[in-house]
Amino acid sequence: MRYALLVAYDGTNYGGWQIQNNTVTIQEKITQALTDLFKQDIKVVASGRTDSGVHAAGQVCHFDAQKEIDPKKIAPALNFRLPPDISILKSVLAPQNFDAVTSAKKKTYCYRLYTSNSRNPLKDRYAVHLKLPINIEKLKECTQYFLGEHDFKAYCAARSTAKTTIRTVIAIDVVTTQKSNATDIEIYVTGNGFLYNMVRTIVGTMLYYSADIITKEHILRSLTEKNRDLVGKTMPPQGLTLESVDYDNLVVF
Amino acid sequence: MRYALLVAYDGTNYGGWQIQNNTVTIQEKITQALTDLFKQDIKVVASGRTDSGVHAAGQVCHFDAQKEIDPKKIAPALNFRLPPDISILKSVLAPQNFDAVTSAKKKTYCYRLYTSNSRNPLKDRYAVHLKLPINIEKLKECTQYFLGEHDFKAYCAARSTAKTTIRTVIAIDVVTTQKSNATDIEIYVTGNGFLYNMVRTIVGTMLYYSADIITKEHILRSLTEKNRDLVGKTMPPQGLTLESVDYDNLVVF
Repeated sequence: MRYALLVAYDGTNYGGWQIQNNTVTIQEKITQALTDLFKQDIKVVASGRTDSGVHAAGQVCHFDAQKEIDPKKIAPALNFRLPPDISILKSVLAPQNFDAVTSAKKKTYCYRLYTSNSRNPLKDRYAVHLKLPINIEKLKECTQYFLGEHDFKAYCAARSTAKTTIRTVIAIDVVTTQKSNATDIEIYVTGNGFLYNMVRTIVGTMLYYSADIITKEHILRSLTEKNRDLVGKTMPPQGLTLESVDYDNLVVF
Repeated sequence: MRYALLVAYDGTNYGGWQIQNNTVTIQEKITQALTDLFKQDIKVVASGRTDSGVHAAGQVCHFDAQKEIDPKKIAPALNFRLPPDISILKSVLAPQNFDAVTSAKKKTYCYRLYTSNSRNPLKDRYAVHLKLPINIEKLKECTQYFLGEHDFKAYCAARSTAKTTIRTVIAIDVVTTQKSNATDIEIYVTGNGFLYNMVRTIVGTMLYYSADIITKEHILRSLTEKNRDLVGKTMPPQGLTLESVDYDNLVVF
């Protein structure tokens, strides 16, 4: 039987999704819970790895198991076995050809920032504090340069092992909320797939543009010349959340 | 010189505001930072104590110090000395007759809940998960019974030392946000002052009413007969945030 899971996690205390030595990972915790529930070794595959400290509101995974368990009962049974910072939101039976990685049509990440004189402890877990105000108009203006199919090699960590660095950015939306002396900024980035660190480097580049550190030409050249010196800083992980993954053949989530 | 501070904190890892033996408190951390900055013993007074695990987005404090420091520079100097889960949002010079407790005209708390099949790790730090859907209309309907001046003795923890248990509830607003399979519920309660556990017990009573466990008569009788058996459960602390404190003679916050 192939099953699929919709998963949320607070990545603060994990070394990312993928099982590694020397650090606790989300894949490891879910694997342990599944193995305990199904009484067999189980390999769980997520739509993509999230990096150390990155959160997920809607990660999607699949796994195969011999034992048949009522799909609705898998989520509560796993949550009983999982720590409070990982939760299975939904569990369903998936078509045998469903693959969390290769069936994914698009993914949406959100990067959260806030600007205020002082940091806010009620925001710091899921957003990054910026002391200086941001030119929101310029932030929105530069989103257009990233849209479409580009070679995002300059936006990808050197240690990436991706076969191709060409990706399509489908949409970037900047949502701002003003409240007393603070501005919350949410940058939603939707694409057909993302390279390692790509969203965090796009956001860093957008911030450089909005602060007049780089120009439109730098961004355009970064995509054609694939030169990492032309882009902004890679932003810290805690501002990033994998919001959702869309599939054609699994519309239930 | 009398100074006033606007303070935000994540209460998760603290035994509440007030200095106690055997537990780390927010008052203790701010006192240490102030004493270090002003090089004298300083007593900091907050608008009210928040309980263990309760958060604040806009707590107000005052303190006296001999040394004169540019008020604008106090917030960053304290934040440098404070742990990341406590932040001074603003620091100002206050009138000598300003008192964070007795000058307070009203306070607003927010209690956050969410309903969904599974718990959500990205919400659990500042909201309480309820598995069953809530009748929002009934939740809104019963807010009227609490409004105005009442004896809230039945809504107050036994260990309270308040001289009078009469308080005025000025407003209760229920704000809901529906998103896929989850509903976020924010209950804003504004009053001229609150007893120990009062907001958490009002919210528990509202939930009992919305679930048809108690009726309008139970609520009305709880306020006239002051009988704790007529009210709902006291809700857990992590859902509660002190949002703001209003003063007539300190409009700068």
